[in-house]
Amino acid sequence: MRQYVLPKYFKGDSEFKLNKEDSQYFIKVLRLKKKDKIFSRDQNGVPYQLTIMSYDKNSCLCKVEKINEGDTFETTDTLPEINEERPKLNLFQCVCKGKKNESIIRMATEFGVESITLIQSKFCIAKKESSNNQRYEKIIKEAIQQSGSPVITKFNDVINFKDFIKNLDMPLFFFHQISLEENLTLKEKVNSIDPKKPIGILIGPEGGLSDEECSLLLEKKAIPVTLKTNILRAETASIVALSTIHTLLVEK
Amino acid sequence: MRQYVLPKYFKGDSEFKLNKEDSQYFIKVLRLKKKDKIFSRDQNGVPYQLTIMSYDKNSCLCKVEKINEGDTFETTDTLPEINEERPKLNLFQCVCKGKKNESIIRMATEFGVESITLIQSKFCIAKKESSNNQRYEKIIKEAIQQSGSPVITKFNDVINFKDFIKNLDMPLFFFHQISLEENLTLKEKVNSIDPKKPIGILIGPEGGLSDEECSLLLEKKAIPVTLKTNILRAETASIVALSTIHTLLVEK
Repeated sequence: MRQYVLPKYFKGDSEFKLNKEDSQYFIKVLRLKKKDKIFSRDQNGVPYQLTIMSYDKNSCLCKVEKINEGDTFETTDTLPEINEERPKLNLFQCVCKGKKNESIIRMATEFGVESITLIQSKFCIAKKESSNNQRYEKIIKEAIQQSGSPVITKFNDVINFKDFIKNLDMPLFFFHQISLEENLTLKEKVNSIDPKKPIGILIGPEGGLSDEECSLLLEKKAIPVTLKTNILRAETASIVALSTIHTLLVEK
Repeated sequence: MRQYVLPKYFKGDSEFKLNKEDSQYFIKVLRLKKKDKIFSRDQNGVPYQLTIMSYDKNSCLCKVEKINEGDTFETTDTLPEINEERPKLNLFQCVCKGKKNESIIRMATEFGVESITLIQSKFCIAKKESSNNQRYEKIIKEAIQQSGSPVITKFNDVINFKDFIKNLDMPLFFFHQISLEENLTLKEKVNSIDPKKPIGILIGPEGGLSDEECSLLLEKKAIPVTLKTNILRAETASIVALSTIHTLLVEK
């Protein structure tokens, strides 16, 4: 189900004026007209029904009604929404080169991760420019709108690896090319954690994680995973890791 | 492990002259020099050791030695290879728009599928041009070389949906946005098939599969799957479907 993500400065008002870019998305892409309705969510995922009151080339004024549980509402398309409770996955992604970060962020958001945090690790070839944040947040917004994800994915700015380890507050799977621990199957590892609580997934950069980083992760009781696949590019590895852990959590 | 895929016209000769493009890949990208060795496979996946005898800007002459089981050989990098037996997945992908097909083909090859077949189905927005075949085969070759996949993925040209159904000769999972059958869990569905034999995975186009196509699939005893995720774009859906089925087959 397609949806619109209300911007951060929306504070629950009963009328809302869209900026130029979003107005053009409504009018030119979605081809909405006066009195048309669209399903929306604010930054906390709270659902709203928007009704178009008036529009011109550069702006669009909408009536805003909060949707409470059990309320009926109208949507722009008929694709179903999966409403089952789902694992709360959080992606920690070491910074990759150029457009790869964008592709990773888009797929992870579409898949419905709770948050995406970029990590600067030892073998990162690229330095993440904070000037890219706006671009990444735009990609996240687009992916939520297109996929109709009920999860409003949070983007966290880049942190260095040691700060990440210090502040880690959830069970973490980290994906590594060389097997570090063979005693448990992946299924047993996944079964050892609480599926209702937030779960972290760490993906290294193109150059992989360093031995020192792996040691720090193991000290923190992070769970090493070697996938029984080929060595994957970073952009493929992240979506494969997310769907592997998701599958083992939901198909018990 | 990086590897080189020998072209179709290689017939097991003890010396082999690379064409201009592959020579430049050896010399400029891999920076190989005289006497350097590289691991290679022919179109059937048979492993060979290549040793560079001489080269100039446009060509490269190699000594070719077949690698038999138990032989030692040299490689250009130290990334490990996963040698466990793996599920024989075959991707049947309805034609998508433009660059999406390329991205899907690249990820599926990297993941190690046995074959990729394009399907023209009712709701395909794009018509697949056979002029793209060369481009797709190039992408497959690159992906095998980069990922070191032991599977030499076969590319099959586009066929229409009805011919696909008529010639279907393996168990098939098809991914659908609307749940068609709720009696079995996905895990039970996967457990019902022989994991050693070829398995098909069908992904619809952007517009999904038609009701008639779904009926034909069910008549053929194809297995419908609705993933417990958001509605995914076709390019994300294919790699998520592949890793979901792979995970359930290898993590029993």
